[in-house]
Amino acid sequence: MNEASGMSFLEKWEELSQFGAVSGTLGVHREAASAADGQQREWFETLMRSWGFRVERDAIGNLFALYEFHPGQPYVLMGSHLDSQPTAGRFDGAYGVLAAAFAAKRAIADAQTLSLQPTKNIAVVNWFNEEGSRFKPSLMGSSVFTGKMELEDALKSRDSSGCTVREALDALGERGSFEALPVSSYAEIHVEQGRDMDEKGVTIGLVHATWAAHKFELRFSGQQAHSGSTLMEDRKDALLAAAQMIVAAHDVTSLFKPGQLHTAVGEIQVYPNSPVVVASEATILLDLRSPSTQVLEQAVQKLITGSELICESTRTQMSIIAEHSWAQNPYQEEGVALAQSVVEELGFTHDRVFTIAGHDSTNMKDIAPTVMLFVPSVEGISHNVAEYTRDEDLLAGLDMLSEVAKRMLVGELALESREGGSQPVNE
Amino acid sequence: MNEASGMSFLEKWEELSQFGAVSGTLGVHREAASAADGQQREWFETLMRSWGFRVERDAIGNLFALYEFHPGQPYVLMGSHLDSQPTAGRFDGAYGVLAAAFAAKRAIADAQTLSLQPTKNIAVVNWFNEEGSRFKPSLMGSSVFTGKMELEDALKSRDSSGCTVREALDALGERGSFEALPVSSYAEIHVEQGRDMDEKGVTIGLVHATWAAHKFELRFSGQQAHSGSTLMEDRKDALLAAAQMIVAAHDVTSLFKPGQLHTAVGEIQVYPNSPVVVASEATILLDLRSPSTQVLEQAVQKLITGSELICESTRTQMSIIAEHSWAQNPYQEEGVALAQSVVEELGFTHDRVFTIAGHDSTNMKDIAPTVMLFVPSVEGISHNVAEYTRDEDLLAGLDMLSEVAKRMLVGELALESREGGSQPVNE
Repeated sequence: MNEASGMSFLEKWEELSQFGAVSGTLGVHREAASAADGQQREWFETLMRSWGFRVERDAIGNLFALYEFHPGQPYVLMGSHLDSQPTAGRFDGAYGVLAAAFAAKRAIADAQTLSLQPTKNIAVVNWFNEEGSRFKPSLMGSSVFTGKMELEDALKSRDSSGCTVREALDALGERGSFEALPVSSYAEIHVEQGRDMDEKGVTIGLVHATWAAHKFELRFSGQQAHSGSTLMEDRKDALLAAAQMIVAAHDVTSLFKPGQLHTAVGEIQVYPNSPVVVASEATILLDLRSPSTQVLEQAVQKLITGSELICESTRTQMSIIAEHSWAQNPYQEEGVALAQSVVEELGFTHDRVFTIAGHDSTNMKDIAPTVMLFVPSVEGISHNVAEYTRDEDLLAGLDMLSEVAKRMLVGELALESREGGSQPVNE
Repeated sequence: MNEASGMSFLEKWEELSQFGAVSGTLGVHREAASAADGQQREWFETLMRSWGFRVERDAIGNLFALYEFHPGQPYVLMGSHLDSQPTAGRFDGAYGVLAAAFAAKRAIADAQTLSLQPTKNIAVVNWFNEEGSRFKPSLMGSSVFTGKMELEDALKSRDSSGCTVREALDALGERGSFEALPVSSYAEIHVEQGRDMDEKGVTIGLVHATWAAHKFELRFSGQQAHSGSTLMEDRKDALLAAAQMIVAAHDVTSLFKPGQLHTAVGEIQVYPNSPVVVASEATILLDLRSPSTQVLEQAVQKLITGSELICESTRTQMSIIAEHSWAQNPYQEEGVALAQSVVEELGFTHDRVFTIAGHDSTNMKDIAPTVMLFVPSVEGISHNVAEYTRDEDLLAGLDMLSEVAKRMLVGELALESREGGSQPVNE
């Protein structure tokens, strides 16, 4: 580890963690394009400019800090996201952005002393709206960048107050015109958001695949009625139907071995949501995840079958408003192998791990060779102000990412070495 | 029936029903102190002034139209409420206010021709915020008037956007300084909000008692976590706990005979209510009603016992934020007898009926002799834009209320004839 750089990293880390800080906790509250997000973006731009980077923003508010060694060459890109869930942890995303910034700075320093001879350029990215809490969907910035989502669809997404992404970005002056960054490879580091590495004493996780996932937006439609006087048998209670589905979605996990199926409903919207009115409409976001695509399919099938009984007994209708799924999804083995080689050289304890949570790298790996790394999170607490990763693990992760960056800069894992292309493509 | 007055009533009824009209339906959307409520209050004031009434508003926005036959005498008061639930029916409340206005107008006309010789004065009231959908609690205006709720507590109640009752009333100029109306008796007419009278072909319901009720505001507290990656056994899911309670509250009705227990959860608030976050907090409004106080107590006991299992299995805590109950609650028999005498004279089909829904008369009967009347509602549809009562039933109800008012004006059922007092008292 570079001792001075490590100290400097922890100092800047403290600075960054003050934006949107939740009083009395280690946590932060800085949803995408909020005032706190605007402040941290400005801070990040100033920092990167002071280190000699050019800062650009694209049309969906992704923030890029660019440094050229060889004008015209593609970029080694590293980063993650600064936005957070409401009252959430400071590490989730922000660690990956600041670690990428310091890793890039180290590479530049090494190039200046000629101990590194890059053949690529280097860039750091803060992806816009990874969390999807204020504006849906999540992974918005990287989805637009990788051509998986239309820019216009993203810009017109609205928060609960009716404000669009376009309006929110414009209010901060964060919508730019930067286009088409040629990427030779991508790296991201993140806290694990699970307790596996923490329990096993593993410092570096080499992410080799994402869990399979299936997400539903389900709407139950019933009929508004007086909730006191209407006969029970006359009711068509949409909230009751949604509640039965929330319970069913939890109970289905007991049909599989522990760790084989995670399910949750985190969000519900009810109309009219009034004290003496049977709800006419209840919309839930249902999320199922499994390391096994087969388990996932079985669980989805059971819930869909079960929903017919729910609708029959509550006399409601269910509509699938949106549905999105992916199979168990590997990262490139070349990327895992590069990380494996680096971690063995550096001597950190390590393991091949799944990611259950989605990351911007899940998008990026589909257009560029990618390395995805984890550092441990104490007790796996995530999306909670009590999220915590020890300093030594933060610094180990920074060393790891720095070394991966340098290998990429000299041409390891570059896209053209595999197939000759370097432009983002739509999968 | 007074033919011309009936026509005039239906014309004014159409006018009133245009305020907050929900396009393409018969329904209205005019929550307390909304813009639509302000418009209909202005319309009502203009109408009453044009008929020679003095219009006053008290400190909680109750709107009174007063007509004196004998200055210094107490008032026969009649009315209901103009506010509605979101996207609700036009009849609920508003019918009772306009019927009271026309009944009072008829009484004045009869007094002018000397066919009626009132010994009391007469007033019509539009109670503020009966519904409680925008500002909690319901029955706000009549609760403050009858001393059951402190004025200051009512004025600081906030809607979901943070606006207080005080601010909302002031924005409309609807907070006044009128005080202490001496009431000799009270009458209210309302649509049934059930399908019993409609099915039996009953035109006039003589309300003799309210169902017992028990209302809870329950909060489940868990822990924010990543809803994808957190192990199922680590979760403390407040929304899951709330969903289990919603299901339990429905299922408990099956332990009793049909019609013996009504339960519902109409409102839920979840934090952070974000797609990838296990909820840390979920608050529900639970409503149980029964014609039997004993059944109600058994049901409440079962749910409270059941909540311990819910909390244990979900590893959450439940707090009772607010709780409010009343036993089966009779209207004065003298009031029912007066209504019975009138309905037999007029020759309408009639029946003694319970009210399951709460009404402002539920408050008023505790400070003054009260007559509560129902007209049928087709299929009992309530708190729904499809709520409907036939013109002939509206007019029959108006005739009924008019005759009750005249009887009250000549001294039948007057408070001082029972116990000598005429000032509101706190129960």
